[in-house]
Amino acid sequence: MRHLMSPLDFSIEELDQLLDLAGDIERHPEKYAHACDGKKLATLFYEPSTRTRLSFEAAMINLGGNIFGFSSAASSSAAKGESVSDTIRMISCYADICAMRHPKEGAPMVASTVSSIPVINAGDGGHQHPTQTLTDLLTIRSLKGRLDNLVIGLCGDLKFGRTVHSLVRALARYQNIKFVFISPEELRIPGYIKEDVLEANHFPYKEVERIEDVMPELDILYMTRVQRERFFNEEDYIRLKDFYILNNKKMKLAKEDMIVMHPLPRVNEISVEVDKDPRAAYFRQVQYGVYVRMALILTLLEVKVC
Amino acid sequence: MRHLMSPLDFSIEELDQLLDLAGDIERHPEKYAHACDGKKLATLFYEPSTRTRLSFEAAMINLGGNIFGFSSAASSSAAKGESVSDTIRMISCYADICAMRHPKEGAPMVASTVSSIPVINAGDGGHQHPTQTLTDLLTIRSLKGRLDNLVIGLCGDLKFGRTVHSLVRALARYQNIKFVFISPEELRIPGYIKEDVLEANHFPYKEVERIEDVMPELDILYMTRVQRERFFNEEDYIRLKDFYILNNKKMKLAKEDMIVMHPLPRVNEISVEVDKDPRAAYFRQVQYGVYVRMALILTLLEVKVC
Amino acid sequence: MRHLMSPLDFSIEELDQLLDLAGDIERHPEKYAHACDGKKLATLFYEPSTRTRLSFEAAMINLGGNIFGFSSAASSSAAKGESVSDTIRMISCYADICAMRHPKEGAPMVASTVSSIPVINAGDGGHQHPTQTLTDLLTIRSLKGRLDNLVIGLCGDLKFGRTVHSLVRALARYQNIKFVFISPEELRIPGYIKEDVLEANHFPYKEVERIEDVMPELDILYMTRVQRERFFNEEDYIRLKDFYILNNKKMKLAKEDMIVMHPLPRVNEISVEVDKDPRAAYFRQVQYGVYVRMALILTLLEVKVC
Repeated sequence: MRHLMSPLDFSIEELDQLLDLAGDIERHPEKYAHACDGKKLATLFYEPSTRTRLSFEAAMINLGGNIFGFSSAASSSAAKGESVSDTIRMISCYADICAMRHPKEGAPMVASTVSSIPVINAGDGGHQHPTQTLTDLLTIRSLKGRLDNLVIGLCGDLKFGRTVHSLVRALARYQNIKFVFISPEELRIPGYIKEDVLEANHFPYKEVERIEDVMPELDILYMTRVQRERFFNEEDYIRLKDFYILNNKKMKLAKEDMIVMHPLPRVNEISVEVDKDPRAAYFRQVQYGVYVRMALILTLLEVKVC
Repeated sequence: MRHLMSPLDFSIEELDQLLDLAGDIERHPEKYAHACDGKKLATLFYEPSTRTRLSFEAAMINLGGNIFGFSSAASSSAAKGESVSDTIRMISCYADICAMRHPKEGAPMVASTVSSIPVINAGDGGHQHPTQTLTDLLTIRSLKGRLDNLVIGLCGDLKFGRTVHSLVRALARYQNIKFVFISPEELRIPGYIKEDVLEANHFPYKEVERIEDVMPELDILYMTRVQRERFFNEEDYIRLKDFYILNNKKMKLAKEDMIVMHPLPRVNEISVEVDKDPRAAYFRQVQYGVYVRMALILTLLEVKVC
Repeated sequence: MRHLMSPLDFSIEELDQLLDLAGDIERHPEKYAHACDGKKLATLFYEPSTRTRLSFEAAMINLGGNIFGFSSAASSSAAKGESVSDTIRMISCYADICAMRHPKEGAPMVASTVSSIPVINAGDGGHQHPTQTLTDLLTIRSLKGRLDNLVIGLCGDLKFGRTVHSLVRALARYQNIKFVFISPEELRIPGYIKEDVLEANHFPYKEVERIEDVMPELDILYMTRVQRERFFNEEDYIRLKDFYILNNKKMKLAKEDMIVMHPLPRVNEISVEVDKDPRAAYFRQVQYGVYVRMALILTLLEVKVC
């Protein structure tokens, strides 16, 4: 039995199969409408994340399966002091598969060691959020036709952004990726990512401060929000939060076939005027998130659809 | 694609069709048990309203469909600052139809402008609650056999009562309705309703202070609760809240075929002794609420059942 | 129509039938996978109890039925002042059966008097939690092969422990049960249980302070947690909470075929090292909880499966 803790859990070949399956689901959803009839997904969300939870639930319902669980620690009995290990052993008696979101890094990993059902890490603190990364990979492969030979710009909070770190690690397994990091000085990509992932594998990268300087060369612009809770003081947040706002004027500089991605929710880092640009891919990304979670559930449950 | 923002969105003819469909659902529920197989209703409740949410969910389950969503802003990620517009674009990727409850007036309307799935306004602040009005209309038509030629008394908080305002507007589209407003001086029906709706269309109405004075002439008595949160001070609330309590003694004055309605929840404005009176229709009203929501979901999804 | 308020609602014969049905469900789950197609269970949890709620929901899903409801009073509209009687009349229009958890003793009983659907008491304050007791009885009968001729040790908080009191009353209807109460002086089993249940029916029992003194004679050791909220002061809690911790050393004294049960969640009253002991039955108990709730739902809905 397999779990999903990190996007790197899958080999390149396994990932290809998963993304192929997601593509087939997109083209032929009716084939999969009863693939999980009678199966149950438990969503164990120790902190609220409506977007992620509903994506998992939509995925399971699309497969004909059932959903139940809890959406925040406040509405669960976690307060009674039960360990995550005991909770997952209980859930193993109730469900066929579960998605766990937890504010503590490593909690889903602990759960997976004693679980008798597949555990999907649906985000553990600042650590991992593998289904977001799978969503990003599917979006890129679907819209650009490949996962290699790309110039990708990553913009915003690159210091604390879990999503960005995971995506860099995931893309660094493919050939000829050039990374462009766009951020203020204070929020630059951490040194350990540059050293362990990029330099160790001889990936070219550069760091700039202004979107405009690199826009023409990008195949993908991956925007991220500046989270208020990551800042040490309010003053820094206010000074920096509007620094990197994508608008139509900046979009004019980009390639005709560039795509703009964003893990969402956005606050104001992408102006709503950009939404109408055909290169804006962030809402299509949400849809790919459902397909890839459907593929993931099928894969972990070892359900074959002919 | 259609949304439902206000009960007046439907023409009289469309409303007739909707209520006919609800009636057929009441008589032949088994015909509709699989009408929405594989479809998903998202309940997006930015403030709790268990009654309304469960009514929508029961309706969708009765049609064979699936339900998911959130029941309060606290258990959703609305706190992250996402706009309603962005949320509905996400939900459009997940669900086939949604019901939105929001404390801010107009939020469901904003959502409907960018949504690619039908949006049902499940109550927006003090503004509209159209499915309550549809429920009231179905209840009246089912139990009285008509929506015209009626004397209807509306009792309680007529100043702030959204439900009452909507029902008055909805009934003012039918012939020969006489309105009787029963309230304390401080909670009288607003002038703009009297002027814009009743006087402009030459509807007869009167305003009285005591239920007893008008009871014998009523075909319908629509009771409402006095909500603590509508009052400016506690003293006024305490003085007024018990002013208009319906009991068996007052019921003795009413017609044999009068019906008592209430949008529920009640606090004490209808004495529990009245529950056993066959004219008490407020719990049957709850059941009609499920039928009319089933009809509404079918109509907005354009699902035909033969 | 029947409700379940107390485990004693069922006669010994009815209980036998219920446990037989649960056993058949365990052996042939596929026979029951569509027994409740189209039916709806409402979970009305006025206080959170994730374990119990998910067990009911898993049970209903396993039967092919649907689930909806609320998981805490905060996310429901109970705050609007509606009585439990009115709520259940509303729910009767929405669901086919309901499970109610309420912090106030007797609330489910009040609900059952006006409900037109079966009500299951899913725990009412310190009063009753009958499906826990049914779970315990099924676990004992399944793992020990009988409900009579047993020596059962009950350990921990015997003064406030609702679960323990219910189990004692339930087992006191069978032949030749010997009760051994293991607790600190301050948390001894109440006098009224000893007098009304045990002495009135001539059941042998003893009270001891140390697990070790009685371990070799037990067929079942039923552990319970010491709940912080039951204590009058923090000092007492800290002094007593670790007093009765089961570990491998104490397990060495027990019979080879003894079983350890626990209603869960545990805090630290059973050391995790015991989990690997084949006599540890507390996680299997969770699974039996699902089977017995499936049997209960079928019984109350009068659904026959051939």
